Amino acid sequence: MTIANIGVLTPRKQEILDAAKKLFSSKGYVAASMRDLAKALHIKPASLYSHYPSKDEMLWEIAIRCAKEFHEYVLPLAKEEASVVERLDRMLRAHLHMIIKNQDASAIFFDEWKHLEEPRKSEFGKQRDIYEQAFIDVINEGKAEGIFRDINARFTMFTLLSAINWVHKWYRPEGKMSLQEIEEEFSKILIGGLRVGR
Amino acid sequence: MTIANIGVLTPRKQEILDAAKKLFSSKGYVAASMRDLAKALHIKPASLYSHYPSKDEMLWEIAIRCAKEFHEYVLPLAKEEASVVERLDRMLRAHLHMIIKNQDASAIFFDEWKHLEEPRKSEFGKQRDIYEQAFIDVINEGKAEGIFRDINARFTMFTLLSAINWVHKWYRPEGKMSLQEIEEEFSKILIGGLRVGR
Repeated sequence: MTIANIGVLTPRKQEILDAAKKLFSSKGYVAASMRDLAKALHIKPASLYSHYPSKDEMLWEIAIRCAKEFHEYVLPLAKEEASVVERLDRMLRAHLHMIIKNQDASAIFFDEWKHLEEPRKSEFGKQRDIYEQAFIDVINEGKAEGIFRDINARFTMFTLLSAINWVHKWYRPEGKMSLQEIEEEFSKILIGGLRVGR
Repeated sequence: MTIANIGVLTPRKQEILDAAKKLFSSKGYVAASMRDLAKALHIKPASLYSHYPSKDEMLWEIAIRCAKEFHEYVLPLAKEEASVVERLDRMLRAHLHMIIKNQDASAIFFDEWKHLEEPRKSEFGKQRDIYEQAFIDVINEGKAEGIFRDINARFTMFTLLSAINWVHKWYRPEGKMSLQEIEEEFSKILIGGLRVGR
């Protein structure tokens, strides 16, 4: 499977997945039932099953489509014409944007995907590896150039993304901090710590 | 309620809570049933109910005891005779130690407590606020001294703790990185970014 092959959904399927995203992220995938979802959509369970034969099928569709969005939005930034600090900064900001744009899907992208059944779970894991590797590569580049310190690149990638990922749990558009303020704070706190000279 | 009043458990209750911690953190609180827990303990459900009348009672005992341990281990470090950088560093390392020492309880401390029923949920929230405020105070002290940059102290506290909290999801004692290596990496990445001069 390649992520680029994922096609467009019918409006009906899109509507079902949107409701499933909300339900899975608020109630948790395990606790949410097909019955709950049918109720939220005001349709009969049988009608829901005709579109998606199982919860796993929906979880997969949500997770892999979310992966595709993150990949397409964030990964090209790793190859832009810019310094390594600038590229890492852009990637982290883009990662933040995707989370805020896809708050419900992010809960699934970060946590609930672990409930996928095999072989989907491994397939999803491969896509995550590709995503994470792009960050590791840029961090390693920065180390090789002597701009970043002697840090463990894989560990650093997890630290940076984890620090940002919690945003999906609390961000509200009407909250006290604007997206731009959040971006600036992350950029200061997270990028500053990587640079040589401390 | 004050956290200091929490007493010692009978060995039987301790055994039940230990099994509950494992079950809640692996299966998730919502999905785990009293029946599952009785099975894991090789006892009858009725016998379990005689010790704990509900899952909520157990979740509360686990969460509040975990809070007590974190408080007693981490918070005194905020008041030690040392520079602000050194104190924040010690607090973050201690926070990491507690997570690694209490991996199952940490999953509950960070995520599953949100399933507590009121008024316990609010009571637990107050304890978390006290814990978080200690970090905010030290960060503000560093700003006032001109050692830390003009960062949002509350946001920074969440960023630092979130970056560390993910450890409970992957740390294994037999893994590639030692606790000391993990500590050093966090210290470099997270504290470095706060300091003036970038």
